[in-house]
Amino acid sequence: MAHPLFEKHRATLDAAVEAIHNRGYWTPYPEMPSPKVYGETALADGKAAVEALAGRDFALDQPGTSGWAAPEKSPYGVKLDVRYPVCEVEALIAAAQAAMPGWRRIGAEGRAGVCLEILDRLNKKSFEIAHAVMYTTGQGWMMAFQAGGPHAQDRGLEAVAYAWDEQRRIPATSVWEKPQGKNPALKMQKHYEIVGRGVALVIGCGTFPTWNTYPGLFAALATGNPVIVKPHGNAVLPAAITVKIAREVLAEAGLDPNLVSLAVVEKRAATQALATHPAVKSIDFTGGNVFGQWLLDHARQAQVYAELAGVNNVVIESTNEYKAMLRNLAFTLSLYSGQMCTTTQAILVPAGGIATDQGHKSFDEVAADLGAAITKFLSDVNVATAVLGAIQSEATLARIEECQSGEYGKVVLASTKIAHPEFPAAEVRTPVLLACDAADEASYMEERFGPIAFVVKVADGAEAVRLSERIVREHGALTVGVYSTRADVIEAMTEATLAAGVALSINLTGGVFVNQSAAFSDYHGVGMNPAANASYSDAAFVANRFRVVQRRYHVE
Amino acid sequence: MAHPLFEKHRATLDAAVEAIHNRGYWTPYPEMPSPKVYGETALADGKAAVEALAGRDFALDQPGTSGWAAPEKSPYGVKLDVRYPVCEVEALIAAAQAAMPGWRRIGAEGRAGVCLEILDRLNKKSFEIAHAVMYTTGQGWMMAFQAGGPHAQDRGLEAVAYAWDEQRRIPATSVWEKPQGKNPALKMQKHYEIVGRGVALVIGCGTFPTWNTYPGLFAALATGNPVIVKPHGNAVLPAAITVKIAREVLAEAGLDPNLVSLAVVEKRAATQALATHPAVKSIDFTGGNVFGQWLLDHARQAQVYAELAGVNNVVIESTNEYKAMLRNLAFTLSLYSGQMCTTTQAILVPAGGIATDQGHKSFDEVAADLGAAITKFLSDVNVATAVLGAIQSEATLARIEECQSGEYGKVVLASTKIAHPEFPAAEVRTPVLLACDAADEASYMEERFGPIAFVVKVADGAEAVRLSERIVREHGALTVGVYSTRADVIEAMTEATLAAGVALSINLTGGVFVNQSAAFSDYHGVGMNPAANASYSDAAFVANRFRVVQRRYHVE
Repeated sequence: MAHPLFEKHRATLDAAVEAIHNRGYWTPYPEMPSPKVYGETALADGKAAVEALAGRDFALDQPGTSGWAAPEKSPYGVKLDVRYPVCEVEALIAAAQAAMPGWRRIGAEGRAGVCLEILDRLNKKSFEIAHAVMYTTGQGWMMAFQAGGPHAQDRGLEAVAYAWDEQRRIPATSVWEKPQGKNPALKMQKHYEIVGRGVALVIGCGTFPTWNTYPGLFAALATGNPVIVKPHGNAVLPAAITVKIAREVLAEAGLDPNLVSLAVVEKRAATQALATHPAVKSIDFTGGNVFGQWLLDHARQAQVYAELAGVNNVVIESTNEYKAMLRNLAFTLSLYSGQMCTTTQAILVPAGGIATDQGHKSFDEVAADLGAAITKFLSDVNVATAVLGAIQSEATLARIEECQSGEYGKVVLASTKIAHPEFPAAEVRTPVLLACDAADEASYMEERFGPIAFVVKVADGAEAVRLSERIVREHGALTVGVYSTRADVIEAMTEATLAAGVALSINLTGGVFVNQSAAFSDYHGVGMNPAANASYSDAAFVANRFRVVQRRYHVE
Repeated sequence: MAHPLFEKHRATLDAAVEAIHNRGYWTPYPEMPSPKVYGETALADGKAAVEALAGRDFALDQPGTSGWAAPEKSPYGVKLDVRYPVCEVEALIAAAQAAMPGWRRIGAEGRAGVCLEILDRLNKKSFEIAHAVMYTTGQGWMMAFQAGGPHAQDRGLEAVAYAWDEQRRIPATSVWEKPQGKNPALKMQKHYEIVGRGVALVIGCGTFPTWNTYPGLFAALATGNPVIVKPHGNAVLPAAITVKIAREVLAEAGLDPNLVSLAVVEKRAATQALATHPAVKSIDFTGGNVFGQWLLDHARQAQVYAELAGVNNVVIESTNEYKAMLRNLAFTLSLYSGQMCTTTQAILVPAGGIATDQGHKSFDEVAADLGAAITKFLSDVNVATAVLGAIQSEATLARIEECQSGEYGKVVLASTKIAHPEFPAAEVRTPVLLACDAADEASYMEERFGPIAFVVKVADGAEAVRLSERIVREHGALTVGVYSTRADVIEAMTEATLAAGVALSINLTGGVFVNQSAAFSDYHGVGMNPAANASYSDAAFVANRFRVVQRRYHVE
C-alpha cells in the first residue's frame, strides 16, 4: 500500500524523474501569473495575505519559543514588522531529532509524497510568496513571482526527484542465496532501511530566500532528515510562509510538524552554535565567502553544501549579432540590479577590438555601446523599475558609490537613482559599468555584488579564454559566457570551462540570459570551482544525505 | 559506436547493475580456486609468478622514478625483497593530470569497459594475487585467494556498477524548448559532459591490500579520475601487480597508462605531501584512526572516504542453538587471527546469564564455553594455520602479549603460538579471550586490533542493547550481531542499529559470519558511525567523484 500522498502526486514525480534524465524543458508549476491558472483573485489575495501579516506575530507553534523578533526592513520601504518566534536552538534540535524515526518509517515513497504535497501547496500560495519575496528582497514583481514562486518550486521538486530516484533503487529486502556445491545453499533474508544522516540546517540568503533554500530543504527532507531553516534576517517572511505550509502538511499527514522548523536568531553566535551542533549533519548555505568559509572550517561534523561568491565572466571575441548581443548583456546586467549570484561581473574584450556584423568595433566602442544599450533598455521608468527592482542592502548601495569613484576603473556608465512610481522609498539604481585593464586584477577579480560590471581589456581572444579559466579556477564562477563566430574559440572556451568546471553559455542573443538557470535542465553551479561545492541538482546533491542500514538473518 | 571494451563486457556490467539493485547473491568471479575455472596449472603458475618477482625490480615504467625500495617483510617469513620504483610525488601527479582529458573524452561507457577489462585480467591473475596477498599480509591461503582475489574483484566491479549506474542517467545532450505563447519557442541545444573531480589517491592497508583498495580505485577511475595507489609499506606487491595490469590494459586501449600509478613512499611525510597536494581531490583511506583523522583534518582540499577503527560487538541475550552459536563465534574470532576490520571485539552477555536450548548458562559458562569452542575449533593444526594465518604486524603481536597480562580483564582463554608446518618463521597465534565488566570501558571500548576479544558482563539484555548502541555511536563499528530468541530484543536491537547506523547480523549459527560482507548484497560499513564515513558501495560512494559541466546555445 503506497502512501496516499505518493499516489496523489505519483504522475508529477514520474514526470520530474523523466525530466531530470532527459533535461528538456518541463515544469508542473506555470511561471505566468495567469488568473486562469492561479485564480481570478489570486493576485489580490496574495497581496492582501502578506499585508495582513504586517505588524503581527507569525504563529508557528514551535518548541522552545523564548521571544519574538521582527528583523526585516523592506528595500521598497514597505512596512512589514512581522514578528517571528525566536526559539532555543536546543529545543529545535531535540524536536527535530524526536521527529526523525516516524519520518524514516514512512519510507521514501511517503516522504516523496509529503514533499510533493508541500510543493503543491506552495505553488497555490505563489502570489503570497511572491509578495513576501518582493517586499523583503527588493526583487521586481514579476521576478519575485517567477523566481520566488514556480521556479523555486521547480528547484525543490528537482531535488525531490533526485532524492526519489536514488532511494527507489534500494530494495526494502532481498533473499541472498549462495550455492554450496552439493550442500544446501546458504540462504539469508536481508532488510535495507534508508536512514537520514541527521538534522539538516538550511541557511538562506537575503536575495533569493526561496530559490536558494528549496533545493537543500527538499533534498534533506526527502532523504529522511528533519530540516531547520535559518533564513537571512532581512528575508524571513518567504521562509516563514514556507515552513508554516510544510508544518501544516506534515501535521495533516499525521507526522510530526517539527520535521520542518524556522530558526530566527538574533545573533551570529546563535547561528554558529546551531551550525556546529553535533546533531546537525548537513548544512546548505548560500551567501558570502566569509561565513561560508567559517562554516566549512568549523562545522566539521556536517556535510556542507555551499554556494559562495564568484566572478562570473563573459568573453567577447567576435559576434555576428552585435546589437542583439548588447541587448542580451544589458538585460543580464540590469536584472534585479545584478544582485544575482549568476550575474556577469567581468566582460573580457580584446584590446584590438572585435569583428562584428556592424564592422570592426574597438574596445572603447564595445564598452560605450554596452553602456548605451543599458541606458536605452532602462529608458522607460516602468521597464527600469520592473527589471531593476530595489537594492537589497546598504552594503550594495555603498559598493555602487565606491565604484562610481573611478577607483576601480574608468566609469563608462554611471549608476543613477530612479524614483519608483509606486514605492517612493525604494532604492532603485541603474548599473555602473567600468572599464579596466586585465592587469587591474584587484578591481575586477573579486566579487562586487550588485549592479557593477567591468569591461576588461585583454590582449586577444586566446588570452581572454585563458583569463576566464584562471578567474574561474582561482575565484570561482557560477556562469561563464562566450561570444564568438569562430569555431576554434568556442572549442577553446569549451575546453577551458570543462577544465575549470563552470557552465558555459554560447552566443546568447535572444530570450535566454547567462544568469538564468532552468530547473530539470541546467545544472546550477556545477560544484567544481570555488564559487560552489555542489550543484542544483545532481545525484551528489542528494546521495550523501542518507545511508542504508541493513540487517540479515538465516532463512530456510 | 560504443567502446569495444564496453561492448565486450556489457553483459557483465548489466548483470552487476541488476545485482546492486536486487542485492541477491551474484558474482562473475568464482570464489573457488578450481582448476576447471582458473586452469589446471593456475595454482602452480601463480605461485611461481610471485616467487619469480622476489629479489627483483618490479618494473612499472612510471614517471619521476628516483630510486627503488623493498619495504616488505612477510609474516610467513617468505623472502620477498621485491624492489619497487620510488617516484617523485609531483611527477606522478603531473602525469595523472595530463592523462585526465583523454579519460574524460572516452566517456562513461569507455571508462566502464576499461575498468571491466582490468577486473577481468585481475581475475585471471587471481592465483598470483592470492600468493602476493598471502605472503605480504599473513592471510591463510584460501582467504588470500577469496578475499584478495574474487571477492576484491567483486567489490571493484560493484563500485564500477554504481559509477556506471549514476553516469548513464546523464544525457550527453538535450534540446530545451520553452513555449512562448504566440511567439516562437525558445530553443536551446545543451551538452552535458561528465568531468572527474581530479587526481584520486587510494591509501591501502596492510591486511587487505586489494579488498579495501579496489572500491576506491575503481569508483574513482570509472568516474573519470586518474588514481594514485599508495599501498601499505608491508603489502605493496598485490597493489603493484594490480597497478601493472591496469597500466597494461590502459596502454593497450590507447590510453595513458599514467591514469593508474603506484606510489611507494619511504616516509610518512611523503604520503602527507601527496595527500595534501592541491591537485588531489579525493582520498580513499583504510587504516588507523590517527592517520585517518590527520587526513580528515589536513587534506581539506579532498573528499576523504575513510574506513577507520571501531569496536565491533555482539549482544548475546538468549539462543536456541547454543553450540552452533559458539561455533559461529569461534570461527569469527579465529579467522585471520581477528585481523579484520569486521571482527567482533566485544561480546555483551547479561550478568545473570542466558537462556539456551542447553538450559540456562551463567555468564562465566558462556565465556568459558566460547573459549572451549575456540580451542576445539583450532585443535587441528592444519585447520588452525589455514584459518588463523599469521600475525601481520609486530604491533599486533605486542598487543596480544599486553592483553595476556590480565591488565584488561580476566583471561578466559590465553593465546598460544602454533608452529606452522610449512612456514617455520610464521607468527601464528590463537585468540585471547578476556572477561570484564561493562564498567571497564577502558579495556574493551577501544579497538584492540588482532585476535583479542572481550566477554563483557552487562546488567541485562536491555542494557546490552543500549551499550551496543552507545559503543557504535561513540567508538564506531562496522559490524554488530545479536543472538536472541525474543522478538522484542531483536526489535530493540534493530532500532538501536538503525539509530546508530551499523549493519546487524541476527542469530548467525551457520555458514555466514558477522565479519563477512558480500559484495552486491551487503553494504560494508554503512558510513554513519565513527568507524567509517562511507560504505562499499552505494550511490554516495561514487556520486561525488564527478561533476557535470554543461554548455548551451540557441538553435533554430
